[in-house]
Amino acid sequence: MPTISKKGTQMPESPIRKLVPFAEIAKKKGNKVFHLNIGQPDIKTPEVAMEAVKNIDLTILEYSHSAGNESYRTKLSASYIKQGVSVNKEDIIITTGGSEALLFAIGSTMDQGDEIIIPEPFYANYNGFSTASGVTVVPVISTIDTGFSLPAVADFEKLITPKTKAILICNPGNPTGYLYSKEEIMQLAELVQKHDLFLISDEVYREFTYDGDVHYSVMNIPGLEQHAIMIDSVSKRYSMCGARIGAMVSKNKEVMNAAMKFAQARLSPPTIEQIAAEAALDTPKSYFDEVIGEYRERRDTLIEELSQIEGVIISKPKGAFYCIAQLPIDNADAFAQWLLESYDLNGETVMVAPAAGFYSTPGVGLNQVRIAYVLKKDDLISAVRILKAAIPAYQAMTQKG
Amino acid sequence: MPTISKKGTQMPESPIRKLVPFAEIAKKKGNKVFHLNIGQPDIKTPEVAMEAVKNIDLTILEYSHSAGNESYRTKLSASYIKQGVSVNKEDIIITTGGSEALLFAIGSTMDQGDEIIIPEPFYANYNGFSTASGVTVVPVISTIDTGFSLPAVADFEKLITPKTKAILICNPGNPTGYLYSKEEIMQLAELVQKHDLFLISDEVYREFTYDGDVHYSVMNIPGLEQHAIMIDSVSKRYSMCGARIGAMVSKNKEVMNAAMKFAQARLSPPTIEQIAAEAALDTPKSYFDEVIGEYRERRDTLIEELSQIEGVIISKPKGAFYCIAQLPIDNADAFAQWLLESYDLNGETVMVAPAAGFYSTPGVGLNQVRIAYVLKKDDLISAVRILKAAIPAYQAMTQKG
Ligand SMILES: Cc1ncc(COP(=O)(O)O)c(C=O)c1O
Ligand SMILES: Cc1ncc(COP(=O)(O)O)c(C=O)c1O
Repeated sequence: MPTISKKGTQMPESPIRKLVPFAEIAKKKGNKVFHLNIGQPDIKTPEVAMEAVKNIDLTILEYSHSAGNESYRTKLSASYIKQGVSVNKEDIIITTGGSEALLFAIGSTMDQGDEIIIPEPFYANYNGFSTASGVTVVPVISTIDTGFSLPAVADFEKLITPKTKAILICNPGNPTGYLYSKEEIMQLAELVQKHDLFLISDEVYREFTYDGDVHYSVMNIPGLEQHAIMIDSVSKRYSMCGARIGAMVSKNKEVMNAAMKFAQARLSPPTIEQIAAEAALDTPKSYFDEVIGEYRERRDTLIEELSQIEGVIISKPKGAFYCIAQLPIDNADAFAQWLLESYDLNGETVMVAPAAGFYSTPGVGLNQVRIAYVLKKDDLISAVRILKAAIPAYQAMTQKG
Repeated sequence: MPTISKKGTQMPESPIRKLVPFAEIAKKKGNKVFHLNIGQPDIKTPEVAMEAVKNIDLTILEYSHSAGNESYRTKLSASYIKQGVSVNKEDIIITTGGSEALLFAIGSTMDQGDEIIIPEPFYANYNGFSTASGVTVVPVISTIDTGFSLPAVADFEKLITPKTKAILICNPGNPTGYLYSKEEIMQLAELVQKHDLFLISDEVYREFTYDGDVHYSVMNIPGLEQHAIMIDSVSKRYSMCGARIGAMVSKNKEVMNAAMKFAQARLSPPTIEQIAAEAALDTPKSYFDEVIGEYRERRDTLIEELSQIEGVIISKPKGAFYCIAQLPIDNADAFAQWLLESYDLNGETVMVAPAAGFYSTPGVGLNQVRIAYVLKKDDLISAVRILKAAIPAYQAMTQKG
C-alpha cells in the first residue's frame, strides 16, 4: 500500500474536531449543548446580499477573472478608501475565503523550511496552512496577564533567523479578542523594515471593535508598502461564512504577481458568491451599528458572568467575538470532554474550545479555553452558569480521583 | 525590500496569459477574435441548478461541513453508483473545484522533492499545483502519431525512482482529447500496484465521450482501492465552471483522513454553489444527450475543416472538447501572437493556445496548438478557415524574413 505524505501526517487536526464525537454523546443522552466553541455567527446575512443571489440571471455560470470580477474589485477598493484604507483595485486579488488568501500569501513569500513568527495564541489554521506549505511556525508568546498585547520587540528579535520571512498577526485577534494599538502596529512596522520581513496582517475581524477603539490597518503605514500584506474576508463582516469570498491585498507588485500565478492555477473564486459579496458592499450602516451593538452587549454579558466564577481569569476582548478564559482546572481538554460526556445541569451542557490548540508551544494554555460569543445573550448566560456549576463539580471529581 | 518565495518565481504562468495583451491589440484594431483557446463552454447551465439558486431561502449563509454538505455527498455517491462507479459518501470530499481536489490529492500523498509522473502533453495547471506543493513533475511523452495513447509501461518504469509517489492521468484528456481504453487503465493499475504508487485520475471530462466509447474509471478496478484517487468537478459536466465545486474521491482511508485535514484548514467549500451542484444532479438525461451530440458535431466539423489545411496533422479526439493540431510552422507561440497582433481575414482573426505550455519537456510541442471546440459550428468553421488562410501567409512571411 502506498504511503501518504509526511505533510499529511503532520497536518494538525482542528482543535474542536476531537470533541465532536463527545458532543454527539451529549446529544444522544438528550442533553442540550450550548456551543461556545464555534466561529459561525448567528447574525443574519444582509438582505441585499441574499436578494442579489435570488435575482441572479445567468444562463451560463462561467469562471470569473482569476483575480475576481473587476466590478467587485473596483467597488471593494472604493469601500476600503472610504474606510481610510488606501487600496487600489490592482492591489486586490479576490480569494476563496480569507483561508485561500492566507495560503496565497504564505506561498508567495515563503518556501519549504522558511520560518514565520506568529504571536500565540493564534488562529489554529495558521498551523495547517504553514504545514501545507512546508513552512515552520515560530511562536512568540503573548500572555493573558498583559491581555495578550504585543510581545516585546526584543522577544521577536530573539527569534529572527536567516530563515525568517514574515511576521503574521491577527488584528483584532482570534482567539484573544485583542486589538493592537497604533503604537504596536508601528513597532511591528519598524521591526519588519529593519529585518526585511513581510508583515502579514489578518484583518478579517476589523469591523468588530468595541469601546470606541479604532482599528489600525497595516495598509495605512507610509513606507510599509513593500512589506504589508492584508488578509480580508466577507465571512464575519456580513455573516456570510459560506460565501467563501476573501481577499489578499498588497501594494508589493512582486508579491501580487506571484499570488496571481497561484490564483490562475486554481482558475477563479466562486462566481455567484462574488455577486453576493459585491452586493453586500451596499449593506446600510445601520446593519453594522446593530451587529456591533449586539456583540458588545454579548461581550459585556459574557465578561460579567465569567467574572462571577471563582478562579476564572479573563482578559476583556476589545474586538472580534472571542475571548480566552483561564479556568481553575489542570487540563481544559479533559474538562471539555467531560462536560459533554459526563456532565449536565438540568439536561444542559456546554461545548468549549480547549485553548491548547491555539498555541504552538507544547504545554502552554492547557488550563485555558476559547469562548466565542456568537450566541444570544440569554443563551450566553445559561451557558456560563453551567460552567459555573460544572467547574467545582469537576474540581471535586478530579481531586477525589 | 523582502524577497518573494522561490516557488512564487517558479510558478508557471498560464500558457494563454501572455497572449492576452495581443488579443487586446486585435480587438483595439477592430478585429473580431474567435477564441479557440479557452476551456469555458458556451453551453447553458442546467435550469434545475440555476433555479435552485433562485429559490435559496437562507437567512444566514453559513459554512458547510468541511467535506461538503452530507445531503450532497449522499446524492453524489448515489449518482456515481448509478453510473456503475462504486463510490460511497465516505469516499468523497467536496472541494472548491477539481482544482482544489488536485491540490488536496497532491498534498496528501506527496512531500517537497517527491516526484509525480504525468503523460504529456497535460493540463498546464498540473505544473502549478505541483510547484505550489514543491513536487517535481516527471513527464513521460505521448505523441501525436499514436493519437496520444498511453506511453509504453517500460517508458514509465524508466522514470520511476525512490521519490516517485504517483502517476497522474487525465481521462479523457485535456489537451489531447484522448480516452484511455480499459486495457490501458489496467496496465496502469498493474504498474502502480507493482511499484506501490498512487494513481490519480482526473476524470472531470468523463461524460464527454464520443463514438460510443465507454469511459473507464480508476474507481472501478478491484484491488486498486488503496491506490486510486479520482478527481471530479461539476465545471464541465453541467457547464457551471463558476460554481467552483469539485470532489476528491478515494477508498484509501489514510489518504482521505489526510485530505480531510487540508479540507478543515480551509473550513468549507462554497455553500450556495453546493446547493446548485446538488440540484444539478437532477439534470435530465436529455440535457446530456443534447450537449454530447452538440460537441460531437463540433468535433466532427473541426476535424473535417482542419484536415483540409495542407500540412496540418491532427489526432481525432475521442473525448473532452480539446484537440491538439500540429501546424506546418516552427513556433506556435510566435504564430499565435502574430495571428492576434498582425493578421486578419476580413476583420477577423483567431486565438489559439500554443501547445508548448502543455508539455513539461523543453522544446517539445513547439509546432502544436490546442484547439478547444467550445464555439458554435459556424464560428468553428469561420475560425478554421482563418487558420487556413493565415498559415500560408505566415509561412511566406517567415521564409522571406
Ligand atoms: C482569524 C481568522 N482568519 C481567517 C479566517 C478564515 O475565514 P474565511 O476563510 O471564512 O474567510 C478565520 C475564520 O474563522 C479566522 O478566524
Ligand atoms: C483536466 C482538467 N482538470 C481540472 C480542471 C479544473 O477545473 P475546476 O477547478 O473548474 O473543476 C480543468 C479545468 O479546465 C481541467 O481541464
